[in-house]
Amino acid sequence: MIKTARRKSIGSQRNPETRIAVLQAARDIMANGGIAKFSIEAVAREARAGKPTIYKWWNGKAGLLLDLHQSTAPEIEATNTGSLREDIAGFLVNLIDHWHSDDAGDIFRAVIAEAQVDQKSRTAFGDYIAGRRAVLSGMVDAAVSRGEISGGADIDVLCDILSGLALQRLLSGRDLSVKEAGAIADVVIDGIVGQSNGASL
Amino acid sequence: MIKTARRKSIGSQRNPETRIAVLQAARDIMANGGIAKFSIEAVAREARAGKPTIYKWWNGKAGLLLDLHQSTAPEIEATNTGSLREDIAGFLVNLIDHWHSDDAGDIFRAVIAEAQVDQKSRTAFGDYIAGRRAVLSGMVDAAVSRGEISGGADIDVLCDILSGLALQRLLSGRDLSVKEAGAIADVVIDGIVGQSNGASL
Repeated sequence: MIKTARRKSIGSQRNPETRIAVLQAARDIMANGGIAKFSIEAVAREARAGKPTIYKWWNGKAGLLLDLHQSTAPEIEATNTGSLREDIAGFLVNLIDHWHSDDAGDIFRAVIAEAQVDQKSRTAFGDYIAGRRAVLSGMVDAAVSRGEISGGADIDVLCDILSGLALQRLLSGRDLSVKEAGAIADVVIDGIVGQSNGASL
Repeated sequence: MIKTARRKSIGSQRNPETRIAVLQAARDIMANGGIAKFSIEAVAREARAGKPTIYKWWNGKAGLLLDLHQSTAPEIEATNTGSLREDIAGFLVNLIDHWHSDDAGDIFRAVIAEAQVDQKSRTAFGDYIAGRRAVLSGMVDAAVSRGEISGGADIDVLCDILSGLALQRLLSGRDLSVKEAGAIADVVIDGIVGQSNGASL
């Protein structure tokens, strides 16, 4: 419907209908042809939008794919099970499940592939990862409030470790079992010193 | 030189000259045109080898790129500074430096991009990462021998965490400072509990 409607430019604001049409076109192209068929040109044609419009509102291919990724499925929310270990393990399992279901994993893989050939896309991808720290930060804050850990944990490092680990699984196509997710949570919470002392058993 | 020599097939063994010619051709194509110009066809033409020969001895594009990556620069060796923290931080810094210098980072990025569009390449990439655990395993064993930590650390998880973190930096183009590498080593050794208790200060 939206694809055939005539849309009026509204100047310096992005027309919401244009956004919907562009994202829908991007989704269709990814679903039918994958990353090999995905180009700004193809999306513009499919969405009946101008290429300059797309370049104006999205930061190239990776920016458009990241917007599509976020609009495809709900973000992974922080959980609060009362145990930081369960929250961290659950976060990892939910993230990998999310990538395995729907098209989210394929779209995110396409973002990463694009980021390897284009510097602007690489920056957009780096910014996106850095922005994900809020969820983990919330889980750690809750653990501090519960008195489970004292304050002072390095959230940036925690965020880097968990997102790096999830990325590695996505990119190499390996699954993540609940048991593995628990073992990873053990290491980031108690360290390998804690493990070898049996603290997390 | 090797490129123009006539090479005799030696049957079920790979001709070492063919290997050198193919890797040299792959390196030239990556250096001049990058991943966009890299194909088995282009490598075969440049190396004066048959495509079937390349497919016989290498597991597709990613397999060839991984072989090129390993032949381009020496592997990161385990260090033994007498401190597991220094060894882990040094390993991360050396790995990122290695990727930033020479063509190693570009080649590895190409491996990852290829692994996103092809299942066989994804498996080759996953196997390669799993194979890297020996270096970290050596560092942890040395720490156990020194009595720095007791045995029982989950080396697989440690390996996953550190390689995931390095991958994330490579893929998003972010640097890794010595300070950050130390902070990461603190978390994997003492955990965020250890951090918040000041154990690693």
